[in-house]
Amino acid sequence: MEKELLLMMPGPVPIPERVRLAMSRQAINHRSAEFGAAYADCVRVLKTAFGTTNDLVVISGSGTAGMEAAIANVARDKKIACLVNGKFGERLYKISQRYGQATEIKSEWGTPLNLDALRAQLEAGAQVVTLIHNETSVGIKNPAEEVGRLCRKHDALFLMDGITSIGGDTVEADKWGVDIAITGSQKCLAAPAGLAMVSVSSRACERMTKNPPFYLDLAAYRKSASGTPMETPYTPAVPLFLALREACLLIDEEGLPARIARHQKMAKAVQAAAKEWGLSLFPKIDALHNYSSTVTAMEYPAGVKDDDMRGIVKKMGIVIAGGQDHLKGKIFRIGSMGAVSAPEILATLAATQHALKKCGYTPKGCGVGAAAEVLG
Amino acid sequence: MEKELLLMMPGPVPIPERVRLAMSRQAINHRSAEFGAAYADCVRVLKTAFGTTNDLVVISGSGTAGMEAAIANVARDKKIACLVNGKFGERLYKISQRYGQATEIKSEWGTPLNLDALRAQLEAGAQVVTLIHNETSVGIKNPAEEVGRLCRKHDALFLMDGITSIGGDTVEADKWGVDIAITGSQKCLAAPAGLAMVSVSSRACERMTKNPPFYLDLAAYRKSASGTPMETPYTPAVPLFLALREACLLIDEEGLPARIARHQKMAKAVQAAAKEWGLSLFPKIDALHNYSSTVTAMEYPAGVKDDDMRGIVKKMGIVIAGGQDHLKGKIFRIGSMGAVSAPEILATLAATQHALKKCGYTPKGCGVGAAAEVLG
Repeated sequence: MEKELLLMMPGPVPIPERVRLAMSRQAINHRSAEFGAAYADCVRVLKTAFGTTNDLVVISGSGTAGMEAAIANVARDKKIACLVNGKFGERLYKISQRYGQATEIKSEWGTPLNLDALRAQLEAGAQVVTLIHNETSVGIKNPAEEVGRLCRKHDALFLMDGITSIGGDTVEADKWGVDIAITGSQKCLAAPAGLAMVSVSSRACERMTKNPPFYLDLAAYRKSASGTPMETPYTPAVPLFLALREACLLIDEEGLPARIARHQKMAKAVQAAAKEWGLSLFPKIDALHNYSSTVTAMEYPAGVKDDDMRGIVKKMGIVIAGGQDHLKGKIFRIGSMGAVSAPEILATLAATQHALKKCGYTPKGCGVGAAAEVLG
Repeated sequence: MEKELLLMMPGPVPIPERVRLAMSRQAINHRSAEFGAAYADCVRVLKTAFGTTNDLVVISGSGTAGMEAAIANVARDKKIACLVNGKFGERLYKISQRYGQATEIKSEWGTPLNLDALRAQLEAGAQVVTLIHNETSVGIKNPAEEVGRLCRKHDALFLMDGITSIGGDTVEADKWGVDIAITGSQKCLAAPAGLAMVSVSSRACERMTKNPPFYLDLAAYRKSASGTPMETPYTPAVPLFLALREACLLIDEEGLPARIARHQKMAKAVQAAAKEWGLSLFPKIDALHNYSSTVTAMEYPAGVKDDDMRGIVKKMGIVIAGGQDHLKGKIFRIGSMGAVSAPEILATLAATQHALKKCGYTPKGCGVGAAAEVLG
C-alpha cells in the first residue's frame, strides 16, 4: 500500500497511532462500566478544553449533528440571530431556519462580524445567537467573548461552534457566557471523525423545548450521562469513543496550555511564510477579530491556478485545502491543528513554496525559512 | 490486558479482526476518490442484503438515527400507524409521535401483531406504517411481507426497521414493498456500532417533506451519494466506513445465502437447547409470525434469578442479555448474529447450562448436545 497522504487541511487531520490503535480492539458492551469509564475520561478532559464546568455530552455524529442538537433543543420557534462571515456561519443559519425565526447577520466572507447589527437584533428581541468561533472557511477568529457579553446583557442564549478552536486555541466557554458550545472529534482533538461534543449551561437547560428531535435530544443525553455507569441514550460509536479517550489522554499528557501554544506557534509560522512569499492573508481583521490559530487562508497570486498548485503539493504527498463555494480558486488554506508540529508544517510550506514557483509565481522571499524562524 | 468478553447479546457483536484493523489506518480525506470507492463497496453489498435496487445511503449515527431519518423525512404531519409488540416497536412509535399523528397498534410484547387493527387504521387513512421486522427485545420475527401487502393495497408508505435481520436473515425489501428500510452496523453485519443504513424507494422520495431535519435530511444524503466520488453531505465517521467496507467484503466472500443459512442454523441450535432444557421460548407465534433467526429469547424457570444466572455466564467470559423494561428478570436472550458460528454458540450454551444448574434449576436434558446435533 502507498503511504497515506499527509492531511494538512482544516480537518480531518492526522491521527496519532495510539488513538488509531484504540479502535482495533474487540467490541465492548456500551452499557458496561468499562465504556462508562472511557466516556468519563473524555468528558473530564473536554471540559478543560471547553473551559466549562457545565454538563458535556458526546453524540455519535458529525459536528453538524452537534450544531443541530444545539439549535433544535433550545431555539425552536424562537427568534434566532445568526452571525455569518463564512460557510459554517451560513450552515448555522440554514439549520436555524428549519427550527425558528432566523435572521442572518451577514458580513462578507472573511470580514469582521457586524456587531452593531447584532445589538439591534438583540434589542428587537432575539432570544438565541449563533456564532462560529473559528470560521474555518476563511481563517478568521471571531470575537466570542464580545458576543457573549452582548448575549448576557440581553438575556439571549449564546450558541457557539468551537469545532475548529476547542482543543487548539483558548476557549473559555463559561467566562464568555457560552450556553451551548460544540466541537467535533476530527479537528484540534486529533481523533477520528464521527463524534460531536456539546456542553450545555443550566440556563440552556431551563429553556429547552418540550419538542426536541429524538436522536439529538440533549436532555436524553444528559440523563444517560448522569447515570452509573455513564451511558449514551442510543448505541454509541464505540470505537470512536475509545479513540477519543486516547486523544483526550494525549491532551492531558501534553497539557492544554502547551497544546494551545503549539497551535498558536504553528499558525504564526504559516502566517510568516505567507508574508515572506508576498501573499495576502485572506481575512480582514480589526481590533476584535483575529487570524485563526488553527487554519491559515491566503489569497492566490494572479495567474496561479488552484488545481495546478494544490495538485503539485498533493503529488508530494500532502493535502492542503482550496477555497469553498465562491472562494474556489481564489484562496487556499493550510490547516495546522491536532497532533502535527514543526515537521509537518515545514514540509507543507516547502511543498507549497515549490508549487507556487512551478505555477509561475516567484515568491518574494523564502517562506519556509521564515516559518522555521518561528518554529525553531 | 484481560481477554475481551465474548458478546453474545443481540448486538453489539464480536467484530472480525480484518474489520477492526481497517480502522487503525491513518485518516483519509472523506472527499477523496478512495473514500468514495469504499462507500460504493458498502452500498453494493448492502443493496443485496436489503433485497433492494433503491437508493441506499449510510448515515454516521446509530440505528435510532436511521429510524428517525425515515420518519422525519416522510411522515411529518401525517397519519402514522405504528405496529408494536416489543421495545423497538415502541421506540418507532415514540419517534413518530414527535413528527406526526401517530397511532400505536399495540400487542403484548412478544405476541403477534394485530393486523386487523392495521387494516382498520389503513382504511381510516393511515399514510405511513412502521414495523420492526425482527423485534430484538422479545425474539419474534414479524410478518413484513404481509404488512407490505396491506400498505400497498392502501397506498401507504411502509417503513421497516431491519436492524437485526438485514445481513443475517432473508430480507426482500423490494419484493415486500418496503419504502424505507433501515439497518445498523453492529448487528448482523458484524461491523462496529455507529452507522445506520437507509434505503429509500422512489415512492418515498416523491412524498418527502419540504421541512426535513438537517443532519438527517435524506435528500441531502442521496444527492451527495449520487456524485463522483460518492460522498456524504457532512463529515462521515471515516474509520467506521472503512470497517463497514471490510465487513461487506466478508459478506461477499461468504455469500449472502450461506450467511443467512448460518444464522438460521445458529438460531435453531439455540432453540433446540431451550427445548432440551425444558425452557419456553418467550414469543407466542402463529402462522404469520416466527421465532427470530438472530436472537432467541427464553423464559427463566421459576426461582432462577437473572443477575445470578447471567453473572455466572459472565464470569466464564460470555455476555448474554436479560430482558428489557418489564421483562427484566423474566427472560434472557442469546444473540446469534454476525460473524459468530458453532464455537461461540456451543460455548455460550454450555456456560448457560452450567449457570442454570448452579442457580438451582435442573435442565430436563443436555441442551448443549441438542445444539451440537443441529450445528454438526
